[in-house]
Amino acid sequence: MFSILDWKPKIGILGGGQLGWMMILEGRKFPFTFYVLENDKNAPACRIADRCFSPQEYKEFVDSSDVITFEFEHVYEEALKYAQESGKLLPRLNSVELKRERYKEKLFYKQHNLPTPRFFVAEDGEEALKILREEFNNIGVIKESKGGYDGKGQYFIFNDVEKYQFLREKKEKMVVEEYVNFDFEASVIIARDKKGNFVSYPPTYNYNEKGILVYNYGPYFNQEIINVAKRLSEELDYVGTMGVEVFVTNGQVLINEFAPRVHNTGHYTLDGALISQFEQHLRAITNMELGQTTILSPSGMVNILGTDKIPVEVLKYGKVYWYSKSEVRKRRKLGHINVIGNNLEEVKQKIDKIMQLIYPNGLDL
Amino acid sequence: MFSILDWKPKIGILGGGQLGWMMILEGRKFPFTFYVLENDKNAPACRIADRCFSPQEYKEFVDSSDVITFEFEHVYEEALKYAQESGKLLPRLNSVELKRERYKEKLFYKQHNLPTPRFFVAEDGEEALKILREEFNNIGVIKESKGGYDGKGQYFIFNDVEKYQFLREKKEKMVVEEYVNFDFEASVIIARDKKGNFVSYPPTYNYNEKGILVYNYGPYFNQEIINVAKRLSEELDYVGTMGVEVFVTNGQVLINEFAPRVHNTGHYTLDGALISQFEQHLRAITNMELGQTTILSPSGMVNILGTDKIPVEVLKYGKVYWYSKSEVRKRRKLGHINVIGNNLEEVKQKIDKIMQLIYPNGLDL
Repeated sequence: MFSILDWKPKIGILGGGQLGWMMILEGRKFPFTFYVLENDKNAPACRIADRCFSPQEYKEFVDSSDVITFEFEHVYEEALKYAQESGKLLPRLNSVELKRERYKEKLFYKQHNLPTPRFFVAEDGEEALKILREEFNNIGVIKESKGGYDGKGQYFIFNDVEKYQFLREKKEKMVVEEYVNFDFEASVIIARDKKGNFVSYPPTYNYNEKGILVYNYGPYFNQEIINVAKRLSEELDYVGTMGVEVFVTNGQVLINEFAPRVHNTGHYTLDGALISQFEQHLRAITNMELGQTTILSPSGMVNILGTDKIPVEVLKYGKVYWYSKSEVRKRRKLGHINVIGNNLEEVKQKIDKIMQLIYPNGLDL
Repeated sequence: MFSILDWKPKIGILGGGQLGWMMILEGRKFPFTFYVLENDKNAPACRIADRCFSPQEYKEFVDSSDVITFEFEHVYEEALKYAQESGKLLPRLNSVELKRERYKEKLFYKQHNLPTPRFFVAEDGEEALKILREEFNNIGVIKESKGGYDGKGQYFIFNDVEKYQFLREKKEKMVVEEYVNFDFEASVIIARDKKGNFVSYPPTYNYNEKGILVYNYGPYFNQEIINVAKRLSEELDYVGTMGVEVFVTNGQVLINEFAPRVHNTGHYTLDGALISQFEQHLRAITNMELGQTTILSPSGMVNILGTDKIPVEVLKYGKVYWYSKSEVRKRRKLGHINVIGNNLEEVKQKIDKIMQLIYPNGLDL
């Protein structure tokens, strides 16, 4: 490929949420066509795609596309499989498979010597509670193996085991983990191309509540996080943008989980970096050059969760991305606000100011 | 307006070129609907608008919109007039009227004591040549009064008057100007809202060839340029983003011309600033807060003119915006490439590198 215009790929995105929406907005700068596979025609990415296919049309969707990627890994099993068989899927199915069952992801870390909180795999809820008692003295985290994201299916238990007896009914695999009393949570956004070239944005400090990211900011320079993410991406022979979430405790880095896609903690790159995580992903999966990941300025992001009351005053402090979802629901990610500042303190002050403006009565998650 | 979501305006844009395209891409982050008035349904902004109206449908276009703005001021006279009468046009018609006839723009500068190169208004080409001889000793610039942009209708004369005798046939008003042997050209992007709030990005150094912008970069800190632009915007009671191009000669600032819209020399703000000139324009015309104009990093832009051979290597140095116009034509603006750097030298080096990559045989304008 000599010119970036020699190839005008049709890119199929599985899922019509905000991650796909931003991928398309960023990708409009290239001569790409965007197809989306999504049930809800009013979903953010569907509204701006060149064509929105319904899930039943997945074969036509895959056949019409040159490359298939996804913005959400927990649905569309048939479509993902069909795309993988067609050789068009990037990132490849091996990454998704680790996310389909949390225990596989954890075992992968163990197998490849990637640092992660101590854990055991239980065959069902009964065994999980037993392991919690015997190995962790009833203080730990039980996670359902299937389909967890945004804190769903995770139980933080602090001796109050009686509250969790309902888990005994669950006849499915679970992961039982030590409770990590972390200093803070962090994450890194990396990208890797087919030739194995690797780039990384600086990590960020993240603040989650009830399993949902509320805000994050950076740069937080920590080479160990980048090294761990690099090794993970290499072990997977990964292609695309990936987010890796970690706990930092006493200087030690432990992988909490990874996302085989663009990630909420990378939204700041839309403004804090020349090339965003979305463009980086598109460059990687279309086999172009990866781009600069240097941060132009300390920056951060606040998620807009479950509210559409966004005082005009926030525009003084940041840049609003409103996803125009069809309805407001509790805990729902409806938009985000990017901020920049001369230093981390200024960024954090703006985040605090925005938090007060959009959640005057506190967060309700 | 308490929440930015209390009003979901339908914004009508006159013109379907790249400026409208970027306005829509940036505006998708707000709950706006975008209509475009444009003859060519494949024009960049039409392809991503919610609806593209043909010029004959201008009444329906204006009636359907809450606010009307424009990305190009040299066409759609009837539509602009109708929009102004409806009270929906921003910026208002007074700015456009100055651009319809260059002599009015120049007289406006003189009348308001805004610095501009010395000039005379001629009634026709015959008189223009006479003034050039008598006032400027046959060294100067003759500009047709109507419809000039990108260097069209401008004649730089250096004693070679015989080449320009065809101007005698022109029975229309002309502007005859002194030739300014400037040190360099510069411009500033400003925005102003209905309440008179004013913001300005730092000016940039511009390099034009044959009347077309080739590249620009900044920041170039020059308060005088900002002051002049501020006064101009106040005299016009301007609302929206405006570009003001100046000559800088021995430290003196002379206005060359202004554009009552987003401007090619402000494309770097898409990446060099948190809030771009496009978002700033939308904020101003929808009566929201103006945003930050601080520059995150020294930055610049290279126009892609008349070529679609864009080596993949440029992706190492910058961020490509390809407008996907229907055909490649000489001198046509087909895209641009934004760059950032740690300092002006680094930005300029990247610009030079990109120039070599996309114009290996030099510019052909």
